[in-house]
Amino acid sequence: MKTLITGGLGFIGSNLARCLVSEGHDVTIVDSLIPQYGGNMYNVSGIENVIKINISDVRDRFSTRQLLKGVDVIFNLAGQTSHADSMKDPFSDLDINAKSQLSLLEAVREVVPNSIVVFASTRQIYGRPKYLPVDEGHPIRPVDVNGVNKVAGEQFHMLYHDVYGIRTTSLRLTNTYGPGMRVKDARQTFLGIWIRNLLCGDPICVFGDGQQLRDFNYVDDVVEALFKAAFTPECYGRSFNLGGSEVINLSDLAQLLVDQHPGGTWQLVPFPPDRKAIDIGDYYSDYRLANELIDWSPSVSLEEGIIKTLTYYQRNLNHYL
Amino acid sequence: MKTLITGGLGFIGSNLARCLVSEGHDVTIVDSLIPQYGGNMYNVSGIENVIKINISDVRDRFSTRQLLKGVDVIFNLAGQTSHADSMKDPFSDLDINAKSQLSLLEAVREVVPNSIVVFASTRQIYGRPKYLPVDEGHPIRPVDVNGVNKVAGEQFHMLYHDVYGIRTTSLRLTNTYGPGMRVKDARQTFLGIWIRNLLCGDPICVFGDGQQLRDFNYVDDVVEALFKAAFTPECYGRSFNLGGSEVINLSDLAQLLVDQHPGGTWQLVPFPPDRKAIDIGDYYSDYRLANELIDWSPSVSLEEGIIKTLTYYQRNLNHYL
Repeated sequence: MKTLITGGLGFIGSNLARCLVSEGHDVTIVDSLIPQYGGNMYNVSGIENVIKINISDVRDRFSTRQLLKGVDVIFNLAGQTSHADSMKDPFSDLDINAKSQLSLLEAVREVVPNSIVVFASTRQIYGRPKYLPVDEGHPIRPVDVNGVNKVAGEQFHMLYHDVYGIRTTSLRLTNTYGPGMRVKDARQTFLGIWIRNLLCGDPICVFGDGQQLRDFNYVDDVVEALFKAAFTPECYGRSFNLGGSEVINLSDLAQLLVDQHPGGTWQLVPFPPDRKAIDIGDYYSDYRLANELIDWSPSVSLEEGIIKTLTYYQRNLNHYL
Repeated sequence: MKTLITGGLGFIGSNLARCLVSEGHDVTIVDSLIPQYGGNMYNVSGIENVIKINISDVRDRFSTRQLLKGVDVIFNLAGQTSHADSMKDPFSDLDINAKSQLSLLEAVREVVPNSIVVFASTRQIYGRPKYLPVDEGHPIRPVDVNGVNKVAGEQFHMLYHDVYGIRTTSLRLTNTYGPGMRVKDARQTFLGIWIRNLLCGDPICVFGDGQQLRDFNYVDDVVEALFKAAFTPECYGRSFNLGGSEVINLSDLAQLLVDQHPGGTWQLVPFPPDRKAIDIGDYYSDYRLANELIDWSPSVSLEEGIIKTLTYYQRNLNHYL
């Protein structure tokens, strides 16, 4: 299969690229390597010679059209992920997470209407949960600009299925972590900056009272879900949650990290007001639909995943700072 | 009160302007008079000297910022309304219905954070009803690009309430009709082209089997709702439906029109494929929340409203062709 991964130098995209290569697929990566985003050439070290890497921006409609030619499956993972940045620069977030998705789908419709498109959506679209666990029927009420634009991005994918018959599917990811994630700051996930702090000898800072509940997926589980969704016709035209099997509060998670790294510390710090304004409170997913559709459930335990992740960054941190 | 109406030369905006003038408010209208949209200078004839008319586009961030100074209430009605056009030119629809809304709200936040913003949303965001009548808890699954972008526009309004405390509210309008609507074509409402055909001696063309159910609001009822919503604190941060008290299928509606216009005719015609692909099937609203929040229910019957509308266009059709 000829596959294209937008945002393929990023965290999830690069892990997916390794998986696709190991399964014998042809992989082209499109990534713009915007410094504030998740792309990192080191993420594809070892496979850089067996994949094609095209440095370009998904906002560039012309290059996208060229790159799509002959592609069978598009894993559409490019995005601006920082909730805080989306509030400071809402227009860039809109351009990347909404307009570029529309642009990509228009190009797919014209160039490769028979291809499959797998979109990485986010639990952020639900906003503050009204009930837990959050299933796909939960109201959509994003608490930040990123969430609004991701809703639009996802809905464009559903629309192009309904109207044009493109085989699109959308996975609503919860907190994903693992080797390759951005750890320089909290732009991709707060776990990134936590790991950086831990390994650099700084305390992990937990906002508020640390009692906020979250669920997590190790990246291998997410890659498996993206791959399965692509080849499961029941997924086309549908959006569904991924989610973790363990629910943990942030203090306990910080403690779990510290337990794995002698000398590490964590502390509670007051919520920065701009973060508090867009915080979603407790969240964890109901992922039964994913289980039904693609026979998926997460297989890597939180402790196992954390150990793998810490081991990776202990060896490779210099490539991510 | 100092009020600003975006899209104020359009159908609903101009009717609202008359209402606000009659209540003694200061009215500024912003409209770009894009030929394919609803703006028409004739819509404000008689009040053009007591209101301020500013010709500019809501995509123009700089002029918007100037125009907002000192404004107490913004009725944000500017939009691209054609579902079919949104499929042919999805990017203009995105710019106007999503990006410009974000731009306006950013300007409100900076220039007049204490103002009230009333947004005209649409029943189109629900897509094909899964049940009837459609209430606000119904899933959001737009069937056209316009619907996706209107969702984003509405969600931005809710977000700026939740995060920045702006007093925003959003009304999800169903089919609205009355004097001032665009009748040149079906870009604003299919009822427009029906009336044009009727008055020009052409048959009204009803798509498909004519059994599709719809509800309707006469424009005066919608103006009342917009006005009440602006000054009802319980509406801030909320979206709610308007709706008609009579549900009618399109054949019966065509017959109702023909009955009011001797010599008029209607006929069934096959659904054009591009329209069928984005048709929502049967739709009517549950507007009990509007009733609770603003003590609103429609007061103009369909027959009365149709007669008033036909009378208006019999006298003024030349200004709308």
